[in-house]
Amino acid sequence: MKALILTADEFEDSELLVPYYRLREEDLTVDIAAPACGTVRGEHGYKVEATRSVADVQPGEYDLLIVPGGRAAETLSDDKAALRIVEWFLEQHKLIAAICHGPLVLIETGLMEERQATCHPSIAFALRSAHAHYLNREVVVDNHLVTSRGPADLPAFMREVMKIVHRLRGARGQ
Amino acid sequence: MKALILTADEFEDSELLVPYYRLREEDLTVDIAAPACGTVRGEHGYKVEATRSVADVQPGEYDLLIVPGGRAAETLSDDKAALRIVEWFLEQHKLIAAICHGPLVLIETGLMEERQATCHPSIAFALRSAHAHYLNREVVVDNHLVTSRGPADLPAFMREVMKIVHRLRGARGQ
Repeated sequence: MKALILTADEFEDSELLVPYYRLREEDLTVDIAAPACGTVRGEHGYKVEATRSVADVQPGEYDLLIVPGGRAAETLSDDKAALRIVEWFLEQHKLIAAICHGPLVLIETGLMEERQATCHPSIAFALRSAHAHYLNREVVVDNHLVTSRGPADLPAFMREVMKIVHRLRGARGQ
Repeated sequence: MKALILTADEFEDSELLVPYYRLREEDLTVDIAAPACGTVRGEHGYKVEATRSVADVQPGEYDLLIVPGGRAAETLSDDKAALRIVEWFLEQHKLIAAICHGPLVLIETGLMEERQATCHPSIAFALRSAHAHYLNREVVVDNHLVTSRGPADLPAFMREVMKIVHRLRGARGQ
């Protein structure tokens, strides 16, 4: 299985690194995409390499999409190519996991109507304005959409993501 | 099951946070111990709360010990109470997982003779001087001792730690 992490400069470091290492622990291939290829820097100074630019991503290549938070999410919610990737995952009912400010990017697609989700409390209004059902919980699972509020929720977030990953793998006999 | 993370100021943030969240994902209770109770700060600015001082730790309360790297490891290798905890785990053949500069604390106990291990390349000489067998691999498992070289090895490190955790749980029928 193959995962894509969608991010930009000023990502929330733990929200990118914890899923990145966790998925690789489980032997998934994980690509990082950003507005441009090359080094992307987190709010705490960690650097990761984006090997794909959002414009070059073929979403069909991936089984799941992770959208970490941080100011990166604001950058991405203004980026048409990034939104195109998220739209594809939402429309195809593929696994999307977004945490903290990550759901901003989902909201911007206009496809969150009637979806149950959570996010950083400071953007709950944006989720509600998009006619989604905001829930103040550590993790909200709505079919293949997994959302959490912030770094402290990472254990619950990854627990639910991994349940779906294992289910998808099982269905493929992998 | 209950895990203890042994650290101090200037821990390598991802080497503490990734195991912390991973073990909690698996429903383990995770305590953090430092030379003094209270806020401990990572090299990248993350803050965690140490709820135990090393002097107050009862090692028998825990099933496994995690020793992250960073300059924290140097501080701990000079701390008698911290060394007492590590000695207990080594002598009782309990699970210890140390990464990057973390093995410095193990070396300082004088109990690493003939053990197979890895560590950050810059301290390989210290491991060799302690008459341990240094191996330049992403992870080295010697019975219940798991060691890795640095953050990039976190997937392999946690994969091996979790194998042992699951085995211990299985043996207890949990």
